[in-house]
Amino acid sequence: MIVTLLTDYGDEDEFVGVLHGVIASICADCRVVDLTHGIPRHAVRHAAVVLRNALPYMPAGVHVAVVDPEVGTERRAVALECDDGRLLVGPDNGVLSLAWPRFGGVVEAVDVSRSRHRLEPVSATFHGRDLFAPVAAQLALGAPLADSGERLDPDGLATIELSAATVAGGTVIAHAVVVDRFGNVALDLGHQDLTGTGLALGRSVEVEIGGARHPAAFARSFADVDAGDLLLYEDAYRTLALAVNRGDAAALLGIAPDDEVRLTPQ
Amino acid sequence: MIVTLLTDYGDEDEFVGVLHGVIASICADCRVVDLTHGIPRHAVRHAAVVLRNALPYMPAGVHVAVVDPEVGTERRAVALECDDGRLLVGPDNGVLSLAWPRFGGVVEAVDVSRSRHRLEPVSATFHGRDLFAPVAAQLALGAPLADSGERLDPDGLATIELSAATVAGGTVIAHAVVVDRFGNVALDLGHQDLTGTGLALGRSVEVEIGGARHPAAFARSFADVDAGDLLLYEDAYRTLALAVNRGDAAALLGIAPDDEVRLTPQ
Amino acid sequence: MIVTLLTDYGDEDEFVGVLHGVIASICADCRVVDLTHGIPRHAVRHAAVVLRNALPYMPAGVHVAVVDPEVGTERRAVALECDDGRLLVGPDNGVLSLAWPRFGGVVEAVDVSRSRHRLEPVSATFHGRDLFAPVAAQLALGAPLADSGERLDPDGLATIELSAATVAGGTVIAHAVVVDRFGNVALDLGHQDLTGTGLALGRSVEVEIGGARHPAAFARSFADVDAGDLLLYEDAYRTLALAVNRGDAAALLGIAPDDEVRLTPQ
Repeated sequence: MIVTLLTDYGDEDEFVGVLHGVIASICADCRVVDLTHGIPRHAVRHAAVVLRNALPYMPAGVHVAVVDPEVGTERRAVALECDDGRLLVGPDNGVLSLAWPRFGGVVEAVDVSRSRHRLEPVSATFHGRDLFAPVAAQLALGAPLADSGERLDPDGLATIELSAATVAGGTVIAHAVVVDRFGNVALDLGHQDLTGTGLALGRSVEVEIGGARHPAAFARSFADVDAGDLLLYEDAYRTLALAVNRGDAAALLGIAPDDEVRLTPQ
Repeated sequence: MIVTLLTDYGDEDEFVGVLHGVIASICADCRVVDLTHGIPRHAVRHAAVVLRNALPYMPAGVHVAVVDPEVGTERRAVALECDDGRLLVGPDNGVLSLAWPRFGGVVEAVDVSRSRHRLEPVSATFHGRDLFAPVAAQLALGAPLADSGERLDPDGLATIELSAATVAGGTVIAHAVVVDRFGNVALDLGHQDLTGTGLALGRSVEVEIGGARHPAAFARSFADVDAGDLLLYEDAYRTLALAVNRGDAAALLGIAPDDEVRLTPQ
Repeated sequence: MIVTLLTDYGDEDEFVGVLHGVIASICADCRVVDLTHGIPRHAVRHAAVVLRNALPYMPAGVHVAVVDPEVGTERRAVALECDDGRLLVGPDNGVLSLAWPRFGGVVEAVDVSRSRHRLEPVSATFHGRDLFAPVAAQLALGAPLADSGERLDPDGLATIELSAATVAGGTVIAHAVVVDRFGNVALDLGHQDLTGTGLALGRSVEVEIGGARHPAAFARSFADVDAGDLLLYEDAYRTLALAVNRGDAAALLGIAPDDEVRLTPQ
């Protein structure tokens, strides 16, 4: 069985290695895939979007996400089963909530805060090690979900609402959602939202951010525009995004998550 | 058999990948866990503390630590067996010395500098590849320790001494030991040292560093104080540490390893 | 079968995790080794040099390299077999070309741009996920190379030419090729090029860069010179390189790839 890990722990400390050790101690044959540990610290929504985008490319298994600014408080820790059989494990703060609709929704959920699988004593600050990793490893070994915590109503699970782009007077009003390390900026605008907007591959588009206007091309890929030029493109998850060929769009535009981006076809 | 790796090689170059390749070439079925490769360059003591803290969470196996500022000189390279059967491999500069007492101490040690397992020619600068990885992989395959180098007296192994906190006139005088990437600062003060100090969960404490005084709370976890506030807490290894909720204590306090930290209960 | 990965994707995003997921989805038993994902963005030549240096330390398998500034254009994607049986997969931009001579040259090559193994729809920007990872995983499972794409003439594969050091009037005129994260600078000068240059272990050497002259020692290893001192040494791949003991040679010298470095024995 595969276990995937997504956290904001970074690669500088031993936190990720300890998760691997805890899992290997319980489940010597589990394969562990690091989805990423580079989520910006405490960025629950960013993590939820990445999990939603990337999980369809993982084999079905136990999928852990730990971005947990409220660790050590009374927030719940949960494990849940999706309709297609995938198991998700993490804090009940919405980090899992954009992923489960992709797999048919939640059919069963348990509160694992006092799971029989946890490592005692549970620290106040490292639930990845003491709670989420051992619960995930036991589930991967075959432990029944119902034995791993206290049954809870899936309707009570925390969820995250994403912003949605709107159209007004020939302009699409979108928002930045996720900025990757290349400075590419994913918007709250999908392939399916383009109908009737006038935005079309090969056309020019004006990008307005914070009052500043930038010319851009709606192109297929980076190399379709000159080095240093701005493009609007459909990224690998079919989300509309801004990039600069061989450059950094977020830096060029001074844009951060939640900022409004106005797109006007030219 | 599991092999764990801890180095200061970082993630930017191919050094870690080459260790994995060398191990996989010798021991196709070994599981390799990267404990961390983010140790600050040449920070032997930092590495020794991390190894001591994290190794109990690893399955028993062969545990390699390479932080080796004297690589290419006459410093010894060693492999040793702990009383509980764990095998430790690394330079003889103390990097292993805080870990082995956790596993019953050293029962057998060999100098592997000219080990039959090394890759020839041994480079002057990359003993991780040419010496430590192949020795570890052969040990993981089952090679006897005694055949892997020249027997040496465990009492002659290099060790690291950590500072110890003291109490004077109602103030605990501690020191910074390890700063993690979140800016959390672990002190040379453990759970067991608190008796009689007046430091207690839920109480206020004054933190003095370099003459500057900062109010703090002794709390269980980050979220028990307001964002931006300083806390003293027991970290996941039962060490007392300083943190700022949603902030960076090391940056706020201007603190680095070895700095004196004075804690006075309020 | 082993699959190795080398990219410029970095560790901050989920791109590498997605490659692992795609491979594990196709080939549950493949072992995946991350050679490195820290290649500077779009640095094809840097990647080609690292692949050439590191691949001999990997078990024979399927070796993927994705540094691909022209992704989404008409550049070819290729898979090829070396005379010793190793399989290389990547864009046809020369990134593979320094490695294959180490393994006997290319005996068979196919254009995998429209490979039956690709994931549909192929995105314009993430061929690592949609093309290179699935092709590599199928090859690792045993898919014949000839079935994985359209046969092409190996002589038409893109190659990279490296600069070569020259000697003039007692001075060796070399160039920086790769700078690692420690600031060590590998030159286009090998062990075998030293004959007759007057450069010899233990001797002093003057290093001239951009008109500035720096004294250095030709030493075996970092610790053979004082902290902060410059040394010329033979690195772990038998390439001549510049370093500063406990320092950063690239920063000290203000040197970047392609810069000329003049070495004069003293």
